[in-house]
Amino acid sequence: MNGVQEVAGSNPVAPICPFAVNKNIRKEAVVVVDKSCINVGILGWGTVGTGVSKILINQNTLISKNSGIQLCVKKVVKRTLPASREGIELPADCLTSDPAEVVDNPEIDIVVELIGGISEAHSLITRAIQNGKHVVTANKALLAEHGGELFQLAKKHQVSLNFEASTAGGIPIIKTLQESFTANQIQSIYGIVNGTCNYMLTEMNERGVDFADVLTDAQEKGFAEADPTLDVEGIDAAQKLTLLIALAYGVNLSVDQFHVEGITDISQQEIQYAHELGYVIKLLAIAKLTDDNRVEARVHPTLLPERSLLANVGGAFNAVCVIGSAVGPTLFYGQGAGEMPTASAVVADIIDAAKSIQWGVSSPISQAWLSNSETEITVCSIDDIETRYYLRFVVIDRPGVLASIGNILGNHNISIASVIQKEPHGTDTVSLMMLTHKAREKNMKAALKQIYTLEVVKGDAKLIRIEEEVAF
Amino acid sequence: MNGVQEVAGSNPVAPICPFAVNKNIRKEAVVVVDKSCINVGILGWGTVGTGVSKILINQNTLISKNSGIQLCVKKVVKRTLPASREGIELPADCLTSDPAEVVDNPEIDIVVELIGGISEAHSLITRAIQNGKHVVTANKALLAEHGGELFQLAKKHQVSLNFEASTAGGIPIIKTLQESFTANQIQSIYGIVNGTCNYMLTEMNERGVDFADVLTDAQEKGFAEADPTLDVEGIDAAQKLTLLIALAYGVNLSVDQFHVEGITDISQQEIQYAHELGYVIKLLAIAKLTDDNRVEARVHPTLLPERSLLANVGGAFNAVCVIGSAVGPTLFYGQGAGEMPTASAVVADIIDAAKSIQWGVSSPISQAWLSNSETEITVCSIDDIETRYYLRFVVIDRPGVLASIGNILGNHNISIASVIQKEPHGTDTVSLMMLTHKAREKNMKAALKQIYTLEVVKGDAKLIRIEEEVAF
Repeated sequence: MNGVQEVAGSNPVAPICPFAVNKNIRKEAVVVVDKSCINVGILGWGTVGTGVSKILINQNTLISKNSGIQLCVKKVVKRTLPASREGIELPADCLTSDPAEVVDNPEIDIVVELIGGISEAHSLITRAIQNGKHVVTANKALLAEHGGELFQLAKKHQVSLNFEASTAGGIPIIKTLQESFTANQIQSIYGIVNGTCNYMLTEMNERGVDFADVLTDAQEKGFAEADPTLDVEGIDAAQKLTLLIALAYGVNLSVDQFHVEGITDISQQEIQYAHELGYVIKLLAIAKLTDDNRVEARVHPTLLPERSLLANVGGAFNAVCVIGSAVGPTLFYGQGAGEMPTASAVVADIIDAAKSIQWGVSSPISQAWLSNSETEITVCSIDDIETRYYLRFVVIDRPGVLASIGNILGNHNISIASVIQKEPHGTDTVSLMMLTHKAREKNMKAALKQIYTLEVVKGDAKLIRIEEEVAF
Repeated sequence: MNGVQEVAGSNPVAPICPFAVNKNIRKEAVVVVDKSCINVGILGWGTVGTGVSKILINQNTLISKNSGIQLCVKKVVKRTLPASREGIELPADCLTSDPAEVVDNPEIDIVVELIGGISEAHSLITRAIQNGKHVVTANKALLAEHGGELFQLAKKHQVSLNFEASTAGGIPIIKTLQESFTANQIQSIYGIVNGTCNYMLTEMNERGVDFADVLTDAQEKGFAEADPTLDVEGIDAAQKLTLLIALAYGVNLSVDQFHVEGITDISQQEIQYAHELGYVIKLLAIAKLTDDNRVEARVHPTLLPERSLLANVGGAFNAVCVIGSAVGPTLFYGQGAGEMPTASAVVADIIDAAKSIQWGVSSPISQAWLSNSETEITVCSIDDIETRYYLRFVVIDRPGVLASIGNILGNHNISIASVIQKEPHGTDTVSLMMLTHKAREKNMKAALKQIYTLEVVKGDAKLIRIEEEVAF
């Protein structure tokens, strides 16, 4: 910390708030830093890291013109050296394999963590914050697990910890929740936040291919990882949902505290039956404030009315609907992943941190993350939610089957809205589809348990929840 | 300025940027103001003013929890007193008919201008800024005319001038362009930014009613003014486009510098023919950066592919597509008008200004507005744009007509993509619809001039431009 001169005795400038007269004010001297250049260190030079360095170096003039900030890439950490990337030339001595050259480097102002994973990222971010550096990260897994602790640490050290790129890539949903919708009680959030799943479901819907084939295709095209578990099982979407919920409701959840269901059970049959009924299947991350002040949190395949905006979000795109008490229904759409869209969000975060440095203030750390301990909002169990359902039973083609199932549903307060029964195709079983009116999940579970005891019902039903509030 | 104690000699707190070592830094003492409450004065207690006071008073705890800011409604100016509003109780002595009690009141920190119009709003905002007050406004007409000057004044007095609610109501498009997309060269903007026109076009599309009837209906429902000129002639959308262009390109345009065309010429016939061709008609505000670094600016009815997201923005809703160099295509959707959505944006601006006050810095005034004088970007004349066209000619039903028109178009480098000719309905004239490939507007004008000299062509053609880039 040596080298920073104290300002006592210097001429104070005209106060910026001249109307502060007669106010209950606390006055402190702070240092306004007007640096010729703000230095950025990047941990990780994979896809996003490359995109970030491209923007910072190739678009330096644009950024300076748009923001008044001069940014400089000082160090880039890549574990295995040497390396070069097309479309970008790093300054000499910039590339290193030692993260300490970033997180412990007194010349570096802002640390950008893009290595992913949890353990090393956690320790490097912690060290950077302790060294007084502002941090930008795209690491949703880390924040979903350690967000509360890291934000407390950032607050203690008066640095910002920005994470726009962690959820929905280039879409500024974090800033929107943190800043633009502050005057709103968030009533609900519906997010298509996993591009891999959305790409796969779109392909299944438009090309009629089945899950396994589209997964292979997505892997070949780079839309899915070699091990697709995190994506297709809904875990990635769930991690992002924890961040959105922390911002919207001040509740710090972990993904094992709510219902998470991926798309591995979605077959071409469900896609087609949904289409016949006027619906499209999307993997949604859903959060809702209930009337009794609890938060519903869930990730699952969802039937959306075909004509709704969210149902028409295709390919690897993301979209997040937020319904606020004042603003009403909103939707934000864009690319949720990829080199440049994610880098766009990371650089916006870097610029916000740089403004904090130039102004001598710490960025607005989400109040929500920090007010967690005081909050009285609790999670609503999946058993307590009320929603409409799509059900498909495979049943023996015999008189009275529909009546038996209908009776059991009725006894559990579940009312059927519509039924379709398909002709049998050379077997003695048929598919029986039902859309229900709104019902309570625990009633549905109990009813299904009883239905499964019927001899005429073969195997478990396909159950997909329906959301209509988002039909705009 | 009296009453603010100088900070010289006081103990400086630990500098927030401990890494400022060895830097080229300028140090100044500033006053950090930690006020128990930040006072807001509201000019105008119409629809939006009422919404703003409702949020500030009824949602005070929520705002404080979400932002850490304590806001207080100090004065509300309503020209004709007394008045009361359902759902809101103002503090005693809060309501006044004298704007000076807001703009000259040393107790008031943030002035919210919601009276609309230009002359009085301009003089009150000027006075407020000169008195060192931060200003929030929703007045797009004022900013479209005096934005450059007012932002310069705000910069001089180190106060913020926030205007999120001026464009697209509750949608945070201003903040997105100013902050989230700073790392992007904005390639194009396509906005449905006038709710009245979108409501009318949606009704014409869905209910098959004609312009005059839907206008009466919109007026009865409060979606259109008694004098709808500003809306239906595209002027309101054009004013909003000037703000978006100022932010995206640093060019300060006035609405008479570009092509502005409303929806008054859109008949039920065009709606239906467009539908047959797979398109929907929307009033779009369009800005594009051309390859030779000029800005295309135009407002006109536009054919959009039926399945695109923008084509499915219905009713009085707004949506803005922004295509950025890094982030790619994005879309922002929400309510563009109305008491609470607009108030949501105004209050977000108030909170941003309040943060500036608490931090002792002025809010980020758009660099774009201020860098105007240096910019080299000029406006591209409508004659120079290239786009696809929908044309409908009314022609005499006689052999050779299509060939004559086709020849003239061909001679002007305009290539026809598809043609539909309708059977005559008891008259000797028929409608001849054409979609062209991309063509230059000045060629189209010249071709049409020549086509109109053909004896077989009756009256002017209906011409609607087509946008396909936004087909996501």
